[in-house]
Amino acid sequence: MELEQAVKQRHSYRGAYIQEPVPRAHLQKIMEAGLAAPSGCNKQTVSLIGIDDAELLQRLLSVMDPPTCATAPALICVLTKHRIAYTDGNGVPRCYAVQDYSAAIENMLLTVTALGYASCWIEGHITDADMQGKRMAEMLGVPEDYELICVLPVGIPAEEFKIPRKRPFEMRAWFNGFPEKE
Amino acid sequence: MELEQAVKQRHSYRGAYIQEPVPRAHLQKIMEAGLAAPSGCNKQTVSLIGIDDAELLQRLLSVMDPPTCATAPALICVLTKHRIAYTDGNGVPRCYAVQDYSAAIENMLLTVTALGYASCWIEGHITDADMQGKRMAEMLGVPEDYELICVLPVGIPAEEFKIPRKRPFEMRAWFNGFPEKE
Repeated sequence: MELEQAVKQRHSYRGAYIQEPVPRAHLQKIMEAGLAAPSGCNKQTVSLIGIDDAELLQRLLSVMDPPTCATAPALICVLTKHRIAYTDGNGVPRCYAVQDYSAAIENMLLTVTALGYASCWIEGHITDADMQGKRMAEMLGVPEDYELICVLPVGIPAEEFKIPRKRPFEMRAWFNGFPEKE
Repeated sequence: MELEQAVKQRHSYRGAYIQEPVPRAHLQKIMEAGLAAPSGCNKQTVSLIGIDDAELLQRLLSVMDPPTCATAPALICVLTKHRIAYTDGNGVPRCYAVQDYSAAIENMLLTVTALGYASCWIEGHITDADMQGKRMAEMLGVPEDYELICVLPVGIPAEEFKIPRKRPFEMRAWFNGFPEKE
């Protein structure tokens, strides 16, 4: 698929999925795109675990509430490792782990779209007070120095979707200066 | 360009640029791709300013040290607004502004690549102790409730590049669990 089309078609899908497995080769392609994303000072803070084992999948999904992707035939769990990229002029250590995993996730969401699947960037309940990511990380044997911060369902969507409305270009982007009135 | 090719070809370019203007239509296409990226709870925290005015460009570039993109014929300045997406179960406000702008930047870097240009995600010196972004924001008349956090040069590369080496897939991605030994 053309990049432009993938960018336009990508959307956050929260509906049901068709019960058809995602070939391992497709999962790998999606994960490879994630790892190809840039990282601050090339620290490569992102790691990934693809889930296509039916029994493990069900155990992981049982942790997720709301059950946004209860019928997803595959998942990709995004892990991050806090690595300092450099120390700035004030002696403050700078870490770009959030930027790194976000760029990786966007590459994966675009590749999901290009392969005819749907997905959704699920991070809130994974990392907030609900700490669902912590329980999932335990199930997967993830060491303490990694954090599981996002889950991407992967599957063929069973329902129609609508792309949410966004504010128009003129209200979010300008040339050669901020407009006098916003 | 195919998405897969754009993902593989994208790289952080820090060399010189050919002195040829970037058509406004191309800059707009790149910025549109940025605004099409997802945002936490659709808060759309990202705004953009494209720079193609030669005199303004020189003033902005004079702030940047190291002068990584001194010869870039165009820039895109990425602005973020701290917006709370929701409050979690512990009463902690959650903001996804970093995730939002990172996804937008990745979409723009891929589109830059697809259009035959090069770029580099410049964030460190913009936001750290050097606070170059603050000075650039003043030049652009950006209100205080926005932060200028990243600059993307855009232009045709004049030099060869090499894509930095990354650790292989098997060291960063696995299936159905974390490997016993890392």
